[in-house]
Amino acid sequence: MRFGVLGTGTVGQTIGTRLVDLGHEVTMGSRHAGNEKAVAWATAAGGRARAGTMTDAAVFGEIVVNATYGMGSLEALEAAGAANLAGKVLVDISNALDFSAGFPPAILNSSTDSLGERIQRAFPDARVVKTLNTINADVMVNPGLIPGGHSVFLSGNDPAAKQTVSELLRSFGWTDEDVIDLGDITTARGPEMYVALWVRLLGTFGTHFNIRVVKGA
Amino acid sequence: MRFGVLGTGTVGQTIGTRLVDLGHEVTMGSRHAGNEKAVAWATAAGGRARAGTMTDAAVFGEIVVNATYGMGSLEALEAAGAANLAGKVLVDISNALDFSAGFPPAILNSSTDSLGERIQRAFPDARVVKTLNTINADVMVNPGLIPGGHSVFLSGNDPAAKQTVSELLRSFGWTDEDVIDLGDITTARGPEMYVALWVRLLGTFGTHFNIRVVKGA
Repeated sequence: MRFGVLGTGTVGQTIGTRLVDLGHEVTMGSRHAGNEKAVAWATAAGGRARAGTMTDAAVFGEIVVNATYGMGSLEALEAAGAANLAGKVLVDISNALDFSAGFPPAILNSSTDSLGERIQRAFPDARVVKTLNTINADVMVNPGLIPGGHSVFLSGNDPAAKQTVSELLRSFGWTDEDVIDLGDITTARGPEMYVALWVRLLGTFGTHFNIRVVKGA
Repeated sequence: MRFGVLGTGTVGQTIGTRLVDLGHEVTMGSRHAGNEKAVAWATAAGGRARAGTMTDAAVFGEIVVNATYGMGSLEALEAAGAANLAGKVLVDISNALDFSAGFPPAILNSSTDSLGERIQRAFPDARVVKTLNTINADVMVNPGLIPGGHSVFLSGNDPAAKQTVSELLRSFGWTDEDVIDLGDITTARGPEMYVALWVRLLGTFGTHFNIRVVKGA
């Protein structure tokens, strides 16, 4: 398939490389054409990888992945263009983290809204699925780094879009048991707010950790 | 030991009963003397259980447990009396949940503050330890309801107070591996915000579930 990956940071590069390795074609979108990180990534990732603008990536992708910094996601998606996102699955893996007061960051959410919802409201014709925002990039695309099964969440209004994203997650190595569908896009508040716990576990557990939801008898 | 348990709801009753069963003496504190739920609980729980006011419970307890609804916790603790809490371990298991717009509730925290911190600031001489707010009451006092080990968090400024609470958790059945010390009381923001995810897992997992923090190689 053809993917547009918005964002040139660690998350965008890690997801982009994994998609190329799985045989997909990927255009990485950045704010300005010729972005050095995007060009270097595309060169290293080989013939199925390209670098372009946000618009180029959105036009190219049958599925679009928002891997931008959450504080700039709405602006990046505006640059990508609402018309270029319409009808497409938009996989939102961003977090609205505010590092202005240092680490750990504040999360720019009330508990009555989330970045996933703001994106869905701003782009009503995109089929937004929030997922993978609760995990380090290496683990997102290679869950086997943590043995024994652990959890990843889905939030979105469109069941078929969530099914498409589930299949993408399975291609990364996640199992059916790992993937937890929380419900509509408002449920993104849960995994987005969980990140406040994640950042406080980093010191003890490093970046390669996750949570497993475990159930009683 | 002698415990004061503030709050007559499910959490207060479940914790109170478990403490009595473990051989401790417990006074359950309520807003008004002669509260029916507290009196009924004390009658059922036997000779080591008493009912009284918030003040009675705080005076009685060598350790005080805040099991009130989070929206009313500061008022309940004011009623208990700062002088009666001074120097004591104050185990805060409350959540500031706002159900005014229905379920799931909003969490009345910014990500730059938490109820645990507000309590510590309001009662600077109490030794506040935030814990157990991420789990259903039955599981709090009987973690074996969920097989295989799962996580509980500690946040607090006083290492000795956290050690006391760790020992209390072990007496409930938690193992050393289960108990994760996040750091000072500001880290309570993590487990308090996680509750936004917890309330969205309830529908799928029921009340008897928890998360296990799992680590890569």
